[in-house]
Amino acid sequence: MQNFFFHNPTRIIFGRSAVTQIGRETAVFGKRALLVYGKESIKHNGVYKTVINSLGSAGISIIEHGGVRPNPVLQHVRQGVIKAKENKVDVVVAAGGGSVIDSAKAICAGALVDHDVWLFFKGKKGIRKALPLTCVVTLAAAGSEMNGGMVLTNEKTCQKFGTGNKLLHPSASILDPTTTFTVPADYTAYGAVDAMSHVMEFYFTGRELFSPLQDRYSEGLIATIMESSEKALAEPENYEARANLMWGAALALNGIAAAGLGRVEFPMHTIEHSLSALYDVPHGAGLAVILPAWMEYTAMTKPDKFAQFAERVLGVTGGGTHSMAGQGVSRLRRWLEKINCPTRLANLGIPTAAITEIAENALALARLWRLRDYSREKFEAILKLCA
Amino acid sequence: MQNFFFHNPTRIIFGRSAVTQIGRETAVFGKRALLVYGKESIKHNGVYKTVINSLGSAGISIIEHGGVRPNPVLQHVRQGVIKAKENKVDVVVAAGGGSVIDSAKAICAGALVDHDVWLFFKGKKGIRKALPLTCVVTLAAAGSEMNGGMVLTNEKTCQKFGTGNKLLHPSASILDPTTTFTVPADYTAYGAVDAMSHVMEFYFTGRELFSPLQDRYSEGLIATIMESSEKALAEPENYEARANLMWGAALALNGIAAAGLGRVEFPMHTIEHSLSALYDVPHGAGLAVILPAWMEYTAMTKPDKFAQFAERVLGVTGGGTHSMAGQGVSRLRRWLEKINCPTRLANLGIPTAAITEIAENALALARLWRLRDYSREKFEAILKLCA
Repeated sequence: MQNFFFHNPTRIIFGRSAVTQIGRETAVFGKRALLVYGKESIKHNGVYKTVINSLGSAGISIIEHGGVRPNPVLQHVRQGVIKAKENKVDVVVAAGGGSVIDSAKAICAGALVDHDVWLFFKGKKGIRKALPLTCVVTLAAAGSEMNGGMVLTNEKTCQKFGTGNKLLHPSASILDPTTTFTVPADYTAYGAVDAMSHVMEFYFTGRELFSPLQDRYSEGLIATIMESSEKALAEPENYEARANLMWGAALALNGIAAAGLGRVEFPMHTIEHSLSALYDVPHGAGLAVILPAWMEYTAMTKPDKFAQFAERVLGVTGGGTHSMAGQGVSRLRRWLEKINCPTRLANLGIPTAAITEIAENALALARLWRLRDYSREKFEAILKLCA
Repeated sequence: MQNFFFHNPTRIIFGRSAVTQIGRETAVFGKRALLVYGKESIKHNGVYKTVINSLGSAGISIIEHGGVRPNPVLQHVRQGVIKAKENKVDVVVAAGGGSVIDSAKAICAGALVDHDVWLFFKGKKGIRKALPLTCVVTLAAAGSEMNGGMVLTNEKTCQKFGTGNKLLHPSASILDPTTTFTVPADYTAYGAVDAMSHVMEFYFTGRELFSPLQDRYSEGLIATIMESSEKALAEPENYEARANLMWGAALALNGIAAAGLGRVEFPMHTIEHSLSALYDVPHGAGLAVILPAWMEYTAMTKPDKFAQFAERVLGVTGGGTHSMAGQGVSRLRRWLEKINCPTRLANLGIPTAAITEIAENALALARLWRLRDYSREKFEAILKLCA
């Protein structure tokens, strides 16, 4: 096990009717809040009204900043930063999924500096202070509700970059599984793939390739997310399935899975960010295409680990290590197909001719995230396996 | 999944040479520290010197309070409270295992009130404030380094009670597995049993008896603790084994295993506390005796859960549910014998004639911890299975 530092101070309030507590959790930080949210879904499922009422009852005045879109964009965050500054808000409240929470985090950091928020993402400026943030989560996917990371797309430069800081950990996150009952089937599946992929990046790329405690933690999460997403797809209002997905997504990226593994990489996310930046595909859909291709490309370089994954998560038995590793990749691909995820670029409407451009785009983030051993040629080779 | 609140703000600094950071972690709270520790072990293995040097370099003046014994006692804590008050310390530093950390927590709470610290344990007074606490952990066992719980023995009344408060979460805990290289074989095994038993109490008593995410989390921890303790016993300086034990013990009782299970009970700890209170046996040794007996008593009331445990943790296959459940209990008992743990009261030097007295003693804590369905007769029946 490698040396590590672990600190996750986010308060989690989990369960039915938990959304009513957003006012109390937010009021400790002040009386003026910027409320960040997405499009229409939280208005349809009642979350918006509950949040407004709870904040109002706690004596908080609200400045609204709705309209965050999936693959959230820089321009909208910049507008939020202006609103936060003009209204001198004390705290930011995010009500939505990862896109909303990530936008809110960027606003929290941007509101307290004079420079453009994108400089944080380019690594040109460090985050030294941030407004406090509270969240109401409405999608089991990104795990942003329990960490300090954020991802944003610069729509002008077609760059989807991620960065993070301990100051961006939400102070409190409210997770009520019933708020995800109305998530449509495709986004339920994409969310599951997103959550799984976070754990799988760590599991397969950690410097400490075998680590008993972290391996079992990750395998348990992946198996649970897989079985729960199937149940949630069959029965959208199955509370247990939604609850396991929701808490699983948070635990997938709250720091425990990676603690002790040493350096980890995010190659699948790196490629997916380019798909989203250039073609605006849903993040989880892009990951579903990259995941089996990256695994196919990588499995034979670490066959023991892939065989362990195949056996413990997917129930592959018998055969040698290489055979088991290969079977694991095939089974995962079939499972993605079973839950109706895209697994080929064509399913996303992306032509094979675009592979070179995508690989080129991925290089920029690869440099920023210090992905060793990933050249344009390697990205192209993986993308060809998605064709 | 039941509604839950999760918040664990403890900073974990894990790895080789981490002990040198205790000064920096402590200095943020002030310049005067009470240093709580046990007997001689930290002086022999170099931890004491490293702590003293690190605190000194950070400009912290130290008031020493050594001599905490296993099954820590109230009288020694009271002396610590007096020292903390007289010297107006800003912060308490614990260097040791669970007994030391628990004593330090009690001092943190006791130093800021005028009444006796035992009133917290009797449930007569609530904890409203506490001095900050930093820890250097030297034993993989109690998990106290990452939670707000504490256990103390009132040696006059022969009561070993436990209580807790969020204010008692250590601000920072330093876990360097090399500090456990010198832990003798018996205490290495007892520590593993203690850590396992925390997870097993949740796993078998949760109101939410089957919970996919928590079950896999717990099973992974137990399996890792079992395999790592065997390795550590065979090779006391095996870093990986010691590291997995150390982080495993912390993760076992940091709140995740129980989150979402609803009400959980601590029947095994309840009985063990009476063994320790009356006969001063090491906590983990007492648990090793109680664990298989309690399981044997309980298995047929929840055969499905015990069968799942037998299959996933102990590799039992084939046979019906009841048979698998029973085999799991037998295998666990054999494993405890394999790592040279006591599994019978006689191994602890406790006569069968004492069973009634032990059961009577356990009733007091059972009332305090609100154990439903545990009568004196039931405690006696379980204790008879330890004979």
